[in-house]
Amino acid sequence: MNMLGMFCVRACSGLLGLRTATPLRFLHSFSGITVAQIDEEVAKLLELKAQLGNDGKHQFVLKTAKGTRDYNPKQMAIREKVFNTIINCFKRHGAETIDTPVFELKETLTGKYGEDSKLIYDLKDQGGELLSLRYDLTVPFARYLAMNKITNIKRYHIAKVYRRDNPAMTRGRYREFYQCDFDIAGQYDAMIPDAECLKIVHEILSELNLGEFCIKVNDRRILDGMFAVCGVPDDKFRTICSTVDKLDKVSWEDVKKEMVNEKGLSEEVADQIGEYVSMQGGMDLAERLLQDQKMSQSKQACAGLQDIRLLFSYLHLFQVTDKVVFDLSLARGLDYYTGIIYEAVLTQAGVATVSTEAQNGPPEEESVSVGSVAGGGRYDGLVGMFDPKGRKVPCVGVSIGIERIFSIMEQKAEASAEKVRTTEVQVMVASAQKNLLEERLKLVTELWNAGIKAEVMYKKNPKLLSQLQHCEESGIPLVAILGEQELKDGVVKLRVVATREEVDVSRADLIGEIRKRTSEA
Amino acid sequence: MNMLGMFCVRACSGLLGLRTATPLRFLHSFSGITVAQIDEEVAKLLELKAQLGNDGKHQFVLKTAKGTRDYNPKQMAIREKVFNTIINCFKRHGAETIDTPVFELKETLTGKYGEDSKLIYDLKDQGGELLSLRYDLTVPFARYLAMNKITNIKRYHIAKVYRRDNPAMTRGRYREFYQCDFDIAGQYDAMIPDAECLKIVHEILSELNLGEFCIKVNDRRILDGMFAVCGVPDDKFRTICSTVDKLDKVSWEDVKKEMVNEKGLSEEVADQIGEYVSMQGGMDLAERLLQDQKMSQSKQACAGLQDIRLLFSYLHLFQVTDKVVFDLSLARGLDYYTGIIYEAVLTQAGVATVSTEAQNGPPEEESVSVGSVAGGGRYDGLVGMFDPKGRKVPCVGVSIGIERIFSIMEQKAEASAEKVRTTEVQVMVASAQKNLLEERLKLVTELWNAGIKAEVMYKKNPKLLSQLQHCEESGIPLVAILGEQELKDGVVKLRVVATREEVDVSRADLIGEIRKRTSEA
Repeated sequence: MNMLGMFCVRACSGLLGLRTATPLRFLHSFSGITVAQIDEEVAKLLELKAQLGNDGKHQFVLKTAKGTRDYNPKQMAIREKVFNTIINCFKRHGAETIDTPVFELKETLTGKYGEDSKLIYDLKDQGGELLSLRYDLTVPFARYLAMNKITNIKRYHIAKVYRRDNPAMTRGRYREFYQCDFDIAGQYDAMIPDAECLKIVHEILSELNLGEFCIKVNDRRILDGMFAVCGVPDDKFRTICSTVDKLDKVSWEDVKKEMVNEKGLSEEVADQIGEYVSMQGGMDLAERLLQDQKMSQSKQACAGLQDIRLLFSYLHLFQVTDKVVFDLSLARGLDYYTGIIYEAVLTQAGVATVSTEAQNGPPEEESVSVGSVAGGGRYDGLVGMFDPKGRKVPCVGVSIGIERIFSIMEQKAEASAEKVRTTEVQVMVASAQKNLLEERLKLVTELWNAGIKAEVMYKKNPKLLSQLQHCEESGIPLVAILGEQELKDGVVKLRVVATREEVDVSRADLIGEIRKRTSEA
Repeated sequence: MNMLGMFCVRACSGLLGLRTATPLRFLHSFSGITVAQIDEEVAKLLELKAQLGNDGKHQFVLKTAKGTRDYNPKQMAIREKVFNTIINCFKRHGAETIDTPVFELKETLTGKYGEDSKLIYDLKDQGGELLSLRYDLTVPFARYLAMNKITNIKRYHIAKVYRRDNPAMTRGRYREFYQCDFDIAGQYDAMIPDAECLKIVHEILSELNLGEFCIKVNDRRILDGMFAVCGVPDDKFRTICSTVDKLDKVSWEDVKKEMVNEKGLSEEVADQIGEYVSMQGGMDLAERLLQDQKMSQSKQACAGLQDIRLLFSYLHLFQVTDKVVFDLSLARGLDYYTGIIYEAVLTQAGVATVSTEAQNGPPEEESVSVGSVAGGGRYDGLVGMFDPKGRKVPCVGVSIGIERIFSIMEQKAEASAEKVRTTEVQVMVASAQKNLLEERLKLVTELWNAGIKAEVMYKKNPKLLSQLQHCEESGIPLVAILGEQELKDGVVKLRVVATREEVDVSRADLIGEIRKRTSEA
């Protein structure tokens, strides 16, 4: 075999996952070889390694995938509590719920996230369709509406989404994380559903007791109008918008520098933007800007300002204006917003620490900003992107930043003296003497059948002490103790774990007594 | 450029996703080219196609990925009800809950599912780790225990799992589906946790009202002992076991044929197995087999039979022996079971129809068998596979076949006259006259703030009829109607949708009145 033949064999064996170093070197000498090419080669080698690595026993790396985590029972107990509060609020506002698959056809997600599309997880092609893990819940929602020709719905959806971002897990940023969305789709009178979304954010953040918060409101049309009247060229609206979006993380000086040095605005234009984006207020500010000589030149801006004014009138009726601020610096990164946008931020000291820490990271557009615990806006064009005839379904929605909220609640639980219970067991069926397993099983069956949450130790002859210890550890409030004497007398000794008080209760009264004593719990 | 050089260029351009037909043809002439190779080429072309296809607008295929589905609000309402019943039962038995990521390191799943590993979804290598979607919840649970060195836990986990199976969606078989697992890990006295798992299945199936059911029980050690005493060679235990597993779908004649013709057993050996696997009973059968001349020769079988006897004594105390049958034909496919195994089957007529239909499909080992709605068993070796020192954590668990249960509940709801409500709204705030939006918003705010589930139409001047229609359609029981007169009188007209009864209620009493009237709902 000559040298060229030899190469050909190697090139093809490479395709079969058996490539050695030689052809890799050859590829380098070829023009047009890309980083992606190399990645592919690496992938093959890793695959090969994975196959070889599993011959030995216990060679596993015991870990979860990068950027993901398990939830332990304590975390789950906190998560359940937070979800319940949020779901109750969504239900109070009449929302239904839907669910969509964790992966979508790749093309469903294509062209929806701009730059961030690179963060989408793709599934390996194993024959059949090209699939990607969902990146948010909004695009699958729009796909669902278009596919089922739904023009009216108020729904919530709580599920995990996936982003191949650089995880910053200490700051509560993961590659797998929950989103918690509430959206109202349908052709309605202006600002009524929009105002309800803000009412919902207000209710949830108040009920969760996360401390002081503030909901910033702006409108894409005001931003665009402002850019126009300040003299930003049309084709730079989006990029300047994303620079403005950094204002919650970096100073105006740095933002201005980026506008001038990187994005090519003149100092004068930048300064004019700077004047507007420093403005904050309420309905009064909207009124004032409607009279503003420059701003009022933009039809778009005026439409936005009038809607802000109307929004505040509804927010007033909803009794939430105390926390809402019209803030011209609020930009939000996602492309699909078309009208009102908003973001809720925690403003208490405890959260500010996190904010400082995060300044070291690279500024990122799409991620919820520092301190942000909810965000959303109006997106009237997204469903139309999926409809074969381009029929639009106006939508407005809000996403609760549940992972940040989990983190805060966990820290709170950690700091609190009160123990987080991970089960709801009301009573432990125990015995003080040996050979009473059968009697314990009989009694626990009675309790289960009556709907009482009860446990029994899976030992023939457990020590009373270890049974009591288990109650202390897992916060079980009552112990039903059986002994020869109790069996003879037809009673059970009911012990209150916290006070060590013990009282004999007849078998007939036991269920009622347990219910009575645990009804507040 | 000579021909060989030409080929080299093409071979490498192929690697870059630009391969034309020519090199493909060439590859065929090469020995060692596999189907996988071709799949890879196809994948590249599809990828290219996907990239090109997205230039045109509205070229989307509006669908979910093969084998997956959306859940609409009605399905979600049913799903929520079923989950609540199941979770309540798990909690009644003192279970905690955990959650694990939707994907695991590929190597975590490798070597756990035998033949079925081909059904695992892999993620595309985008640089970094090789990842796969979870195939069940048991292997991630074992990984979690080993990783966190947990030796004692009673946990449930309800989450979606992924299998690239041929979907049979009409029969409720999907590629994305829920599993609903309850497991007890820890070193305990024999058969106590095992019996509790069966008690749980009994409680759940009874509460869900799915009709008559039966829980079959067997033990891997009895199966292995039986094979041994019947003269099956050691290395054929697993394959014969999977043939026995088909007995719930095909006749004994067909099973015997497979044993003799395909798996090479003698007629005599097969007939002896046939005798045993036709046996069904309770504790009495275990007693009889312990006396059986042949069976009693196997230590393994005796250990299994003694445990079955003990199990039945506990099941008797748990009051569930009415539904449990010791059935020597129950085999269950999964490799990791080491002791007791069980499976719950619906036995009523309605389900039998589905069962006939399913006989046309290919027999599959790992899927829950026809009519099966729960299954599980003891797996004492799985956690040790993950532990660096091989330390074992004995486990027993059960998985509720929730997708089948959803299907049945949906059919029931479809057949029933009663409408499934998809929201829990108690009252609609409506107006009979124009220009009362502000008053409606004020009132609905009062209700929300008091925790009442309430809705208002997002129109300035909705027609009373359309407001009432919305109530009828979504099952809202009450309407709070505002008019000029009501506002003057300081009352609200409360209308009962079902009876059309109307009553004036003072504003101060409204919340109490709504609570009273909806407290049973």
